[in-house]
Amino acid sequence: MTAHYDRAITVFSPDGHLFQVEYAQEAVKKGSTAVGIRGLDTVVLGVEKKSVAKLQDDRTVRKICALDDHVCMAFAGLTADARIIINRARVECQSHKLTVEDPVTVEYITRYIATLKQRYTQSNGRRPFGISALIVGFDDDGSPRLYQTDPSGTHHSWKANVIGRNAKTVREFLEKNYTEEAIATDKEAIKLAIRALLEVVQSGGKNIELAIIRRNQPLQCTKQFWESI
Amino acid sequence: MTAHYDRAITVFSPDGHLFQVEYAQEAVKKGSTAVGIRGLDTVVLGVEKKSVAKLQDDRTVRKICALDDHVCMAFAGLTADARIIINRARVECQSHKLTVEDPVTVEYITRYIATLKQRYTQSNGRRPFGISALIVGFDDDGSPRLYQTDPSGTHHSWKANVIGRNAKTVREFLEKNYTEEAIATDKEAIKLAIRALLEVVQSGGKNIELAIIRRNQPLQCTKQFWESI
Amino acid sequence: MTAHYDRAITVFSPDGHLFQVEYAQEAVKKGSTAVGIRGLDTVVLGVEKKSVAKLQDDRTVRKICALDDHVCMAFAGLTADARIIINRARVECQSHKLTVEDPVTVEYITRYIATLKQRYTQSNGRRPFGISALIVGFDDDGSPRLYQTDPSGTHHSWKANVIGRNAKTVREFLEKNYTEEAIATDKEAIKLAIRALLEVVQSGGKNIELAIIRRNQPLQCTKQFWESI
Amino acid sequence: MTAHYDRAITVFSPDGHLFQVEYAQEAVKKGSTAVGIRGLDTVVLGVEKKSVAKLQDDRTVRKICALDDHVCMAFAGLTADARIIINRARVECQSHKLTVEDPVTVEYITRYIATLKQRYTQSNGRRPFGISALIVGFDDDGSPRLYQTDPSGTHHSWKANVIGRNAKTVREFLEKNYTEEAIATDKEAIKLAIRALLEVVQSGGKNIELAIIRRNQPLQCTKQFWESI
Amino acid sequence: MTAHYDRAITVFSPDGHLFQVEYAQEAVKKGSTAVGIRGLDTVVLGVEKKSVAKLQDDRTVRKICALDDHVCMAFAGLTADARIIINRARVECQSHKLTVEDPVTVEYITRYIATLKQRYTQSNGRRPFGISALIVGFDDDGSPRLYQTDPSGTHHSWKANVIGRNAKTVREFLEKNYTEEAIATDKEAIKLAIRALLEVVQSGGKNIELAIIRRNQPLQCTKQFWESI
Amino acid sequence: MTAHYDRAITVFSPDGHLFQVEYAQEAVKKGSTAVGIRGLDTVVLGVEKKSVAKLQDDRTVRKICALDDHVCMAFAGLTADARIIINRARVECQSHKLTVEDPVTVEYITRYIATLKQRYTQSNGRRPFGISALIVGFDDDGSPRLYQTDPSGTHHSWKANVIGRNAKTVREFLEKNYTEEAIATDKEAIKLAIRALLEVVQSGGKNIELAIIRRNQPLQCTKQFWESI
Amino acid sequence: MTAHYDRAITVFSPDGHLFQVEYAQEAVKKGSTAVGIRGLDTVVLGVEKKSVAKLQDDRTVRKICALDDHVCMAFAGLTADARIIINRARVECQSHKLTVEDPVTVEYITRYIATLKQRYTQSNGRRPFGISALIVGFDDDGSPRLYQTDPSGTHHSWKANVIGRNAKTVREFLEKNYTEEAIATDKEAIKLAIRALLEVVQSGGKNIELAIIRRNQPLQCTKQFWESI
Repeated sequence: MTAHYDRAITVFSPDGHLFQVEYAQEAVKKGSTAVGIRGLDTVVLGVEKKSVAKLQDDRTVRKICALDDHVCMAFAGLTADARIIINRARVECQSHKLTVEDPVTVEYITRYIATLKQRYTQSNGRRPFGISALIVGFDDDGSPRLYQTDPSGTHHSWKANVIGRNAKTVREFLEKNYTEEAIATDKEAIKLAIRALLEVVQSGGKNIELAIIRRNQPLQCTKQFWESI
Repeated sequence: MTAHYDRAITVFSPDGHLFQVEYAQEAVKKGSTAVGIRGLDTVVLGVEKKSVAKLQDDRTVRKICALDDHVCMAFAGLTADARIIINRARVECQSHKLTVEDPVTVEYITRYIATLKQRYTQSNGRRPFGISALIVGFDDDGSPRLYQTDPSGTHHSWKANVIGRNAKTVREFLEKNYTEEAIATDKEAIKLAIRALLEVVQSGGKNIELAIIRRNQPLQCTKQFWESI
Repeated sequence: MTAHYDRAITVFSPDGHLFQVEYAQEAVKKGSTAVGIRGLDTVVLGVEKKSVAKLQDDRTVRKICALDDHVCMAFAGLTADARIIINRARVECQSHKLTVEDPVTVEYITRYIATLKQRYTQSNGRRPFGISALIVGFDDDGSPRLYQTDPSGTHHSWKANVIGRNAKTVREFLEKNYTEEAIATDKEAIKLAIRALLEVVQSGGKNIELAIIRRNQPLQCTKQFWESI
Repeated sequence: MTAHYDRAITVFSPDGHLFQVEYAQEAVKKGSTAVGIRGLDTVVLGVEKKSVAKLQDDRTVRKICALDDHVCMAFAGLTADARIIINRARVECQSHKLTVEDPVTVEYITRYIATLKQRYTQSNGRRPFGISALIVGFDDDGSPRLYQTDPSGTHHSWKANVIGRNAKTVREFLEKNYTEEAIATDKEAIKLAIRALLEVVQSGGKNIELAIIRRNQPLQCTKQFWESI
Repeated sequence: MTAHYDRAITVFSPDGHLFQVEYAQEAVKKGSTAVGIRGLDTVVLGVEKKSVAKLQDDRTVRKICALDDHVCMAFAGLTADARIIINRARVECQSHKLTVEDPVTVEYITRYIATLKQRYTQSNGRRPFGISALIVGFDDDGSPRLYQTDPSGTHHSWKANVIGRNAKTVREFLEKNYTEEAIATDKEAIKLAIRALLEVVQSGGKNIELAIIRRNQPLQCTKQFWESI
Repeated sequence: MTAHYDRAITVFSPDGHLFQVEYAQEAVKKGSTAVGIRGLDTVVLGVEKKSVAKLQDDRTVRKICALDDHVCMAFAGLTADARIIINRARVECQSHKLTVEDPVTVEYITRYIATLKQRYTQSNGRRPFGISALIVGFDDDGSPRLYQTDPSGTHHSWKANVIGRNAKTVREFLEKNYTEEAIATDKEAIKLAIRALLEVVQSGGKNIELAIIRRNQPLQCTKQFWESI
Repeated sequence: MTAHYDRAITVFSPDGHLFQVEYAQEAVKKGSTAVGIRGLDTVVLGVEKKSVAKLQDDRTVRKICALDDHVCMAFAGLTADARIIINRARVECQSHKLTVEDPVTVEYITRYIATLKQRYTQSNGRRPFGISALIVGFDDDGSPRLYQTDPSGTHHSWKANVIGRNAKTVREFLEKNYTEEAIATDKEAIKLAIRALLEVVQSGGKNIELAIIRRNQPLQCTKQFWESI
């Protein structure tokens, strides 16, 4: 049985798989859907708000949060793991600003997060992180960025992408509908994000949360994105 | 058999579960019921007093205790584990006051506790903490807070919530009865907490213990909540 | 088979048990019976003296010993483990006196012992301590105290309690016979302790050892309780 | 069953195999094809661009990157592992320049990478790196170099070689077509690299990425090769 | 099968046993018989000399040795383990004399040895010591002492005791024959020790080795007891 | 099944074998054949050049390399492991020269290598080195030396020896043909080495690589032996 | 099956055995025979020279070596392990001379070696040493000494003893033939050693190696015993 190769992250299976990393990706697939759209002058993050219990505060079931003044992140997977990643990324952003006197680029902080994740796939005695993340923002030169990382520690740049539950359905929608026109204006890009999520969010728009970053504008997200998770 | 994936907290099961964390939640479900109500000008914690042995002192079977002058916590699960959490949270409260010259917010100390719990779900050789907690208090701006954390290290804000034995029954009661009127006054909020617990506490009101925090008033709890557990 | 979850203290069973801690409690149940009575002006500890081998010195089969001038402890379980606990508790008593300039309270030293025990239930590579303890004494304010801790690291305050072999039988006796009158005087309290032990000690009173602490009086126990175990 | 010898990198099988290293090589065989050609005055690296998802940025699926001004590397296998290797190799290149005041030779940095890989095949608790690499460049004396390393930590010099998916097919093509004439000029060498990749890249030339280093010329690769992975 | 609980000293069996400690006691039961008699003015240690090979020096098969000028020890079990214990006990005796300016009491050094043994029953990765010991001597106040420790780390005081092979037979003999008269004089006590050993030592008195300590007299044992084992 | 004793180098089998060391020797037996001849005024190392792939550079498939000006080594087994050994031996040669102001003797560096190998057969968590080595050179007194070490860490001096694939066949050839005359002159010794290898090297002399050290002459080996592997 | 108790040196079997130590003794039993004779004015060590391969140098298959000017050691078992023991013993001899200004006694260095061996039988993660040793020499007072240690860490003094292959046969010979006369003179003692070995060494006297130490004379052994193994 190949089953025996999946007990520890430090063991390859005979056909070269790291099963524990793949199982962590299953935890991501159970997470709430998050979509990212890279527009011309804007980047949009949208997440399905988990159908919270009746008496639960919406406010704390955050799946989007700011890493720095110009970088936002949405995640899918284990919330407690995400808090660790986010805390460390925020510290890195501040520390980078202090030593280099420039804010991090979106790619820099993405690589920082991806490298952190990789380390947990090669060291004994620790499981990999059970989260995927969409990281968005504008670089100094004004170009919008959208990156995605997964539990294995890889990262890629996307025009539009989706993580979490039903990612496949939403990605197919995006591939069909992501066009030049669909992201021509802020409004269009936001609309695309909402429409994409509505493919899988059954209870309609009231269960969707958005973060919008516009070029050369302060991070347009409500105070709550700055709150810690 | 998936049974083999549940022996260590550092191993994901093929469908992305951390079984050891889920088993720790079973220990919580065996704990005594604790209810938290966030009123308008008050927050109320109520716990079922475990039916103590005849000669046991009621006083020491505490499931509620103060973390700081303005923050209280009730827990369900392994009492010995809770003592570790409470001791560390109290030290953090004092240390925060000394360095930042402000008391902790309720959310801050909640996140501190949740992060401590997460660490025990990702490091080799230690089991997760077998407790859930309800953490209540008022922030500087006078807003009442009620948070809940579980063994996985997640935390959420609630209007009213319940942990421990028969949590489901009590939560259904709360969802039906938690209304604006039901928490309009201190009295009403306290009554709601008691009624909720009476749903599952068979021996009646004498087996219920309460802690009440009012806005802008010193922590209204008996001396015993300050005693160490 | 649930049997597989009981091999290490760092593993929860699917229904939330820590089997290794429960097995340690079995070692306690095999220990000699120890009873504690909290009177009005006195606290009494009584232990069944293990039926020593014919040539063995009674003197060294001590199950009661003093932790400080005003605190005594009786234990049931593995004697070698108890020596570790007692040595560390005595050092803590002295160290507390030196730094705080006040003797420890009975509860303080009880919590110290309980926390020490909890640590051994959550760290890899060490078994839990196989002992339960009854800790008695008077606090500064003159109130008598009787605490009990078990291998899991929990502790509770009692009016009267019993640990070790046949604990259930003796506890039932105590619950029936512990009344205001039964502890009104020193004599009565001592008599109650002896009668409770005689429920299960077959060879009669000569196999019983007592320690009596009276309010505002030096620890009334023979020199031997101060000897090290 | 020999199957039991493949669970840990620190265990030889009875016939002297290190199965975990061999399984890591399976992960390499699943990677995208990379080809290296050592010409007379040029070295060429070519990789199959993984058929990216429709909305994914081509730019970030880099399988070629520069280690120093005169050294390039292409890899096949786990991208997250490659990032670790590349980061450490770049630091070593800079550090070598600072201490020795000469740039590294291609062989030096190859040995550095190979030794790093070997260490992960002999230390407990860490899996081997799941990547193979082609490392090319010119030495000070103007001679072109092409090295290849694999997960076991061996390295060899080649006239032309290939790693990753379908390596066997491409290698057979190269062995048939690598001749003096085929690498006589830059153009020919580049053509050979492209033709070799087209043996297995079905979607044609648009899915091929090249890096060309010419003698005594600055590294002729687009800015992107310098970007971090 | 309960068999699975006996593989590591850090695991309790379901009924509260530490099997590894019990197995170490089996190693003791295979050791040569050693008897200790506490007389009025004398303490006597007697051991069966293992039937040495024909060409072996009797002298080095020592099972009795001096720990200090006034303390002797006999052991049964693994000789190599005993050497470790003895070396550490001798160092402790010297170190105690230097710091406290008084020789150790017999009980002090007994507890030191017992605590050392206990530590090996609760720490991961080390087996318990496979020896039991009889420790004898006179305290400052002139009272004779006889202690016994076993692999679990417990210790007891005895009038007369026996460890090693056939301990049960010899102990029954001692229980029948140890009387006031039997230890009234030095001679009688020595005679009792010899008679006890002869119960199980088949080859007669020439295979018996004795150590005799008299009150207020220098340790009356041949030079060899001071030699290291 | 004895099979269970071969999983870790720290476990003896019931008949006293260290299976992991023996399995490492299997890896050596798969390595390319290397022969060493100790002549009167010369020592000769010869290795079968692994039939390299068509486009592979012969130059880098080195199985012989210099450790110091007067010491050469040939190895069979895992090339990546050999690099570790060689690097450490070269450092030791330099360090010896600096501290003792004399070059190492051939035996000294052989023992250094053998001790390094032994350590990996007795420490937890690391596999033994999968290589055997022939180490040759002249000592200060002008005597030629030929040593051989294997994965267990033993070393022996030889007149002529062989390691790697088909070692048995070649050794039989050497035992038949190694005579006074056969090594009388340099030429003869070299011829003997070649003839021995040709017993098992099918593709003839062009696949043989030689290193020759003559008395009182600088190490007569091509530059490549000094290159690092 | 008791087989399960023999996988680690830190585990006792139910009947008190340390199987790993016993398996190490099997490795000793496979070693070449070594005999030691304690004469009146001489001590003799004799070993069977392993039937070396035809081209192997006899000189390096040393089983006897000097630890100090007056102490020699012969061993049977794993040669690579012996080198570790010998190196550490030689360092201890020198270090003892420097600090105490006296050479070690034979017993002192024997105990040093035995204690080193014991440590490897009680610490996790390391196998015991697979060698037995005969250690001989003269003490300051002119008395000849012959000690023997085995993998468990025990040591004994002998008049004559044997370790390694066929030890039983040789020991029976020695027990029959070791008499006062047989060791009266140097010659006789040497003859006895040779005759004892010839019981099991088939190829006759030429395969025997001797070391002879005479009272008050410098260590009479050829230079080679001082060479390192």
